[in-house]
Amino acid sequence: MNFDDAYRNLLNWSKEIYLLDGIIGLLEWDQRCFIPDKGHDGRSEQIAYITKIKHEMLRNPKVAEWLAIVSLYDNDPDIEANVREWKRWYDRASKVPVDLAESIAKLTSQAETVWAKAKKDNDWESFKPYLSEIFHLKKEEAEAVGYENSPYDALFDNFEPNATVSEFLPFVEELKGKLQNVLSRVLSTENVDDSFLYRKFPVQIQDRFFRTIARKIGYNFSAGRLDETVHPFTVAIGPADVRIAVRLSDHDIRVGLFSTIHEVGHALYDQGLDPEKVATPLGMPVSLGIHESQSRFWENIVGRSKGFWVYFYPRLLQHFPILADISLDSFWRGVNKIEPSLIRTEADELTYIFHIILRFEIELGLLEGALTIEDVPYAWNAKMKDYLNIEPSDYSSGVLQDVHWSSGLVGYFPTYLLGSIYAAQLKNALEKELGPIDELCSKGQFFSILEWLRYKIHRKGCKHLPADLIKEATGFPPSAGFFVEYMEDKVNRVYGV
Amino acid sequence: MNFDDAYRNLLNWSKEIYLLDGIIGLLEWDQRCFIPDKGHDGRSEQIAYITKIKHEMLRNPKVAEWLAIVSLYDNDPDIEANVREWKRWYDRASKVPVDLAESIAKLTSQAETVWAKAKKDNDWESFKPYLSEIFHLKKEEAEAVGYENSPYDALFDNFEPNATVSEFLPFVEELKGKLQNVLSRVLSTENVDDSFLYRKFPVQIQDRFFRTIARKIGYNFSAGRLDETVHPFTVAIGPADVRIAVRLSDHDIRVGLFSTIHEVGHALYDQGLDPEKVATPLGMPVSLGIHESQSRFWENIVGRSKGFWVYFYPRLLQHFPILADISLDSFWRGVNKIEPSLIRTEADELTYIFHIILRFEIELGLLEGALTIEDVPYAWNAKMKDYLNIEPSDYSSGVLQDVHWSSGLVGYFPTYLLGSIYAAQLKNALEKELGPIDELCSKGQFFSILEWLRYKIHRKGCKHLPADLIKEATGFPPSAGFFVEYMEDKVNRVYGV
Repeated sequence: MNFDDAYRNLLNWSKEIYLLDGIIGLLEWDQRCFIPDKGHDGRSEQIAYITKIKHEMLRNPKVAEWLAIVSLYDNDPDIEANVREWKRWYDRASKVPVDLAESIAKLTSQAETVWAKAKKDNDWESFKPYLSEIFHLKKEEAEAVGYENSPYDALFDNFEPNATVSEFLPFVEELKGKLQNVLSRVLSTENVDDSFLYRKFPVQIQDRFFRTIARKIGYNFSAGRLDETVHPFTVAIGPADVRIAVRLSDHDIRVGLFSTIHEVGHALYDQGLDPEKVATPLGMPVSLGIHESQSRFWENIVGRSKGFWVYFYPRLLQHFPILADISLDSFWRGVNKIEPSLIRTEADELTYIFHIILRFEIELGLLEGALTIEDVPYAWNAKMKDYLNIEPSDYSSGVLQDVHWSSGLVGYFPTYLLGSIYAAQLKNALEKELGPIDELCSKGQFFSILEWLRYKIHRKGCKHLPADLIKEATGFPPSAGFFVEYMEDKVNRVYGV
Repeated sequence: MNFDDAYRNLLNWSKEIYLLDGIIGLLEWDQRCFIPDKGHDGRSEQIAYITKIKHEMLRNPKVAEWLAIVSLYDNDPDIEANVREWKRWYDRASKVPVDLAESIAKLTSQAETVWAKAKKDNDWESFKPYLSEIFHLKKEEAEAVGYENSPYDALFDNFEPNATVSEFLPFVEELKGKLQNVLSRVLSTENVDDSFLYRKFPVQIQDRFFRTIARKIGYNFSAGRLDETVHPFTVAIGPADVRIAVRLSDHDIRVGLFSTIHEVGHALYDQGLDPEKVATPLGMPVSLGIHESQSRFWENIVGRSKGFWVYFYPRLLQHFPILADISLDSFWRGVNKIEPSLIRTEADELTYIFHIILRFEIELGLLEGALTIEDVPYAWNAKMKDYLNIEPSDYSSGVLQDVHWSSGLVGYFPTYLLGSIYAAQLKNALEKELGPIDELCSKGQFFSILEWLRYKIHRKGCKHLPADLIKEATGFPPSAGFFVEYMEDKVNRVYGV
């Protein structure tokens, strides 16, 4: 077989994986948005079945032959990038034994149900054996995949290609030290008032206003949809079908407002991928960390900027005259309020970092043997106390709060933290080229921000590994310093400390 | 391989086909209800891909081996029924050459687009070559599948197992003669007034009222959904996920009212299948004719009965006081108005039969060689004139009005007619056991009607071939006489002739 045939086979294979991913996306979207009550069992079977077809396809032994053939040639960088990613897909799928993959799928499918009930009942003991078995099997997965230094690396890499504990730990240490300092400055002063965010905001009007924001910042509704759901998410169903779903609360405008901007950030990445490269790695998002950098960029760096509200606050007041007594400045300070809290998904952008560090450290301890499952709730509470000086009074608002582990997502949390630091680093680079975000936003020039991100990030797909992509886009390797600088500036402006 | 292993393999294979059908169902449902404008191209690729997977699975050569093994044993009637249907699936899939199936898929995918434009532009010439090629390939398909008497049988059988032209023609002849007689009696008297059906009916209120009807006659909303679309349809996505979509018009209450009851009729069949037999033929609908008998039973025999409106008319008036000046009797006569018209989907239940006969005769003529493509518009108009004494003034309201042929659905139309005659025959049998439908409906006892249909039809799945099922349920082989009798009675009561 010559290069052309092998490469064409790989393109077809890539296309099939892509189509299956889109189909799984629709099955899940419908399950979260529109499925009737009794449809869930049937849907789980459909998802499991298509996922099985996809996994069988991923580990098709012919792929190894095709990859070997194309690797014999001196290829251009685009082809190299595709081949690099295809090799990653195939390697992981073929290294994890079918039995193990099926055991994990079966266990996590049960564990999610057990977890949901345990969280509702504040019942750690019933979830504990599942968590134990999940980490046991994920450790086996790590051994099967292989790693150089830490078993954690084998899992981390699944979400953030080439990421390692040894490169991630310095970020953690730097952020722990410097952000605790920033946080203590905030806590030493009087906190801002954000009580007006909890007034009564009819959800239909929220929906209308949030659609205006989504459209203005660049979301293309003719290639997507916005619906309501319980846990906000974005899903790419097809090249021109990227849907978001958000949660709205009539007594907390933050919930829908920032979940909309966050999910639009994800969707802009998917809508901004190169249409010429559809169904190949060059037309796909490169990592969860980079994906999260986009959602956080729009949610926090744009959506919590003063300039954003200079532009949108008069429009918000038109929709909600109930806020007429609140000044632009008070509103902006309110949505930037920093305060330690127990629940990750409700945390502000500073304390959020500690929620992630806590989870990362527990995952790492479990995989490397420094912690046992018995230790987990104690470690959780001790770290909450240590980092944020608060402690959960029950399991539900502590160790049981997140779905991730029950779904087998181990090594996933750090990508949230990488998203934050990548976003701050991108802000720094963007401002050097386009001037202050505040100014662009206040003039409603969201399109120039989007174009910059498209050019630097979206259109690149998987051309570069995540760390290299950040270096290409910003001129520096990933560094936590930009985030610290960004938070210090924010705190200084909001709190005057 | 012993019987147990072979049968288990067949059950797994049947389950996979079933899952794929449900997934295709969701892909199509979303495409017709919720997809964003730009999502259509990607969706077509997904549907084509899953359909290809399904077809490859259907003609898996191992299935022939398994079927041969289980056929060696003396089986119970349930197993026999499953094996009979599986053999039908496999035979058709393996007899039609892959190349031919792909040519048909490709051609009809283009033809649907050409047809839509041709219909819009009243442009028969642009669609003609496609129609010609479609009938040419369908003839090839018929030859590949094989038949005893007419090539039409090979296509007819795909929608109505074991149906043949020679058994269908006597229905056609009997109906043509007797119904033209009934129709001429109607046309000789003053027609009923139905102008009030075209008053202004806000669609939100229609939606609310139609949901009440759907629920009352037995549709289970926790195992389904009701949405709006352009062309009403019902789709079974999973065993407890049967969705309907209808069209609402604010200036014609008939559109939404009868499309809702019609689609609910389809959905009640799917929701009434035996949950113990899911994913096997015994838990699947047996034919399109039987399916249509259920939708027409609810739409016409129940939904256009006097008793139905005795029960629902006061409720309708609560929702639409604009009808306060119209008596129950006038309303009931209005929704039973009979009048020749050009468009099949808007026809009353009597003239509808002639629309089908016309299409069937043209299809048969094309396949058996009595007609050429050139003849089709002339034959169409001549038959309209002959049967209904009206003539289309353009192609769009004549030969170009239906999507079916452009989609490759040849041999499908007669199942609509079978649905009508089966429904009337079921009415006759039900009334012998439960008393007059009118009385059951006027007391709101829809549940006893549904239970009877469940027991006689829904729960049987593919246990019997369609004609045998009707014989089992009613005591008589399928006969057009029941429909004639039903129409004569209706006309007598509505028109007094």
